[in-house]
Amino acid sequence: MREKPRILDIRTLARTRLFHVQQLELRFANGVETTYERLLGSPQGAVLVVPLLEDRQVLLIREYAAGTDRYELALPKGRIETGEGAIEAANREIQEEIGYGANHLRQITSLTVAPGYLGHSTHVVLATDLYPQRMPGDEPEPIDVIPWSLDNLVELTAREDFTEARSIAALYMVRELLDG
Amino acid sequence: MREKPRILDIRTLARTRLFHVQQLELRFANGVETTYERLLGSPQGAVLVVPLLEDRQVLLIREYAAGTDRYELALPKGRIETGEGAIEAANREIQEEIGYGANHLRQITSLTVAPGYLGHSTHVVLATDLYPQRMPGDEPEPIDVIPWSLDNLVELTAREDFTEARSIAALYMVRELLDG
Repeated sequence: MREKPRILDIRTLARTRLFHVQQLELRFANGVETTYERLLGSPQGAVLVVPLLEDRQVLLIREYAAGTDRYELALPKGRIETGEGAIEAANREIQEEIGYGANHLRQITSLTVAPGYLGHSTHVVLATDLYPQRMPGDEPEPIDVIPWSLDNLVELTAREDFTEARSIAALYMVRELLDG
Repeated sequence: MREKPRILDIRTLARTRLFHVQQLELRFANGVETTYERLLGSPQGAVLVVPLLEDRQVLLIREYAAGTDRYELALPKGRIETGEGAIEAANREIQEEIGYGANHLRQITSLTVAPGYLGHSTHVVLATDLYPQRMPGDEPEPIDVIPWSLDNLVELTAREDFTEARSIAALYMVRELLDG
């Protein structure tokens, strides 16, 4: 186990409504000093939900993504609000985004998206025993909900609009969990 | 297929060495107008390499990640330099990070990490027929290289230091490609 680099200095370079850019001065155990930039994540993190129906169908959503300026297919997700836990946030997000609540919710892992420069953690929650229940969300337009079989991930990952690494990782992990 | 929202205005909110934060004013097809923030990615994107030995062992690296302030296990990766293609960048990154070149390199997919707010694309390259070859990189300390079997992804994804969604997605996709 290596000794972690020592943080000599942290300063804020920029702060907007969504982003907080920091500069770090680090000294590694071997004496080398370097400067890094990183984005702070929200302290609570986010949830990514795998809403699973009884016949191995998962419910995907298709919505506009401003980062890539195109519609993307992915699992439902969202930030954990202050005072919420991951399970509670997961149950809220699926009610807002796909119109289902879940009787069983279970956190199966936590993922990072780009640990080198993003301090962001996403908790993956498997939601089963679903029931129709809709809560109003803050989406600018209705979200398309697309059922997809866990037995057909090859075709899904070949689609040009299904590229999000967290969703791909979560679906494979759930499939392995069910089949393991 | 929905009609994409119209971009009414784009402005730069912040720009540092690594990050470029933009604000977008959008009008959706239904008339709703909203404001988004996003990070521009590098135009060339990044590569993530799956260096595969003949016995279904992949070579992982373990290095310090400033975003999460801890050591993370993941596949080798890096930005594509100006003038490079994805394959060329992949072969350079593994020579720098794990001390191998590859005779066969093949792009298997492209991943996004957070398409809602990050315009960043990562090309996944499968590298086979490896041979020892080291190029100097810009790492502040030597990188640990850890071989791991594709037949043991459950134990790998259960590790607290293996959380990066792109690496998990890429390993499952390569395993499916080999076994498919």
